[in-house]
Amino acid sequence: MRTNPERRQALIDAAIEVLAREGARGLTFRAVDAEAAVPTGTASNYFASRDELFMQVGGRIYERLLPDEAVLAKSREGVQDRARYAELMHELVDRISAFGSGYLALLELRLESTRRPELRAVLTKRIREDIDANLAHHAASGLPGDSTSVLLLYLALNWLIVERLTLPDIFTDQQLHELVDIAVRRSLGE
Amino acid sequence: MRTNPERRQALIDAAIEVLAREGARGLTFRAVDAEAAVPTGTASNYFASRDELFMQVGGRIYERLLPDEAVLAKSREGVQDRARYAELMHELVDRISAFGSGYLALLELRLESTRRPELRAVLTKRIREDIDANLAHHAASGLPGDSTSVLLLYLALNWLIVERLTLPDIFTDQQLHELVDIAVRRSLGE
Repeated sequence: MRTNPERRQALIDAAIEVLAREGARGLTFRAVDAEAAVPTGTASNYFASRDELFMQVGGRIYERLLPDEAVLAKSREGVQDRARYAELMHELVDRISAFGSGYLALLELRLESTRRPELRAVLTKRIREDIDANLAHHAASGLPGDSTSVLLLYLALNWLIVERLTLPDIFTDQQLHELVDIAVRRSLGE
Repeated sequence: MRTNPERRQALIDAAIEVLAREGARGLTFRAVDAEAAVPTGTASNYFASRDELFMQVGGRIYERLLPDEAVLAKSREGVQDRARYAELMHELVDRISAFGSGYLALLELRLESTRRPELRAVLTKRIREDIDANLAHHAASGLPGDSTSVLLLYLALNWLIVERLTLPDIFTDQQLHELVDIAVRRSLGE
């Protein structure tokens, strides 16, 4: 296997775009090579199998979806009240929606994981870690609400992003914006 | 085009299973024929194009997911309080999860609709109608809560079902059950 890390990452990023655009079945080494604009045969030198490619993609999407240190530091500034919570959730939804191909690719991976037990195990672990990190982050933040609020927001905002990315005409931008506010308020038990 | 309605419906039901199992790209006339155990060439006599097949599948899934008159009549019985609301939401989640292939096929359709504008228009209309029907049904029911509660439950429970069907080891059955109770309570502003 080749190990040039930049090349490897470029191939995985290309795979995310292929997955979002063509669906799980469209994710072939050949399509990844074409998307990354590298010679045919390159991806097969970096990944032992399509299985491995699927699993690498899952990790990489989370890496790109998670906020960087600057965003996290900024999120800790200011009064940690309900208005601030709502603001952070709007930023979260916007940040994830801005990487729409990543989120759509993640949905493709979830569906593909019903067919690939190994991928299912990897995704389960990764997403469980992310939920636990969210719970820990919230507990340490001083924001209002409890673990229940965090889980409810996790559920509601995930589907809101699905709605926004897959069928964007069901709700207007204004309605989606209001739904985030409402989800925060009711999740907090207000 | 052939018009035997039972045969047509059997082909669409076969298409749902193919879509859930193989993904959108796997939905070919040939795969539908094989799934429905009919001679090769049958599906292509019933549907003008794959586009048409995708659109028919969307409508049929909703037809099968929606409660029948007996379930609806039963839902109107008894005291329409919060406990009853929670009970109805548990039944809803269980009914949809029991037709897992239908729900997974619907997710495949949502992803496919990012590639097929005509499918996107059909799905948008169908889902918008479903949301409006839910809002109207709730308003007429005497159940506690408002339109906001209905929309929040729509968001939260959809993702809960995604979780249950795609990565069932993230939450235990008990945790999912509790999340439904919590989603109802907080959606109602309690």
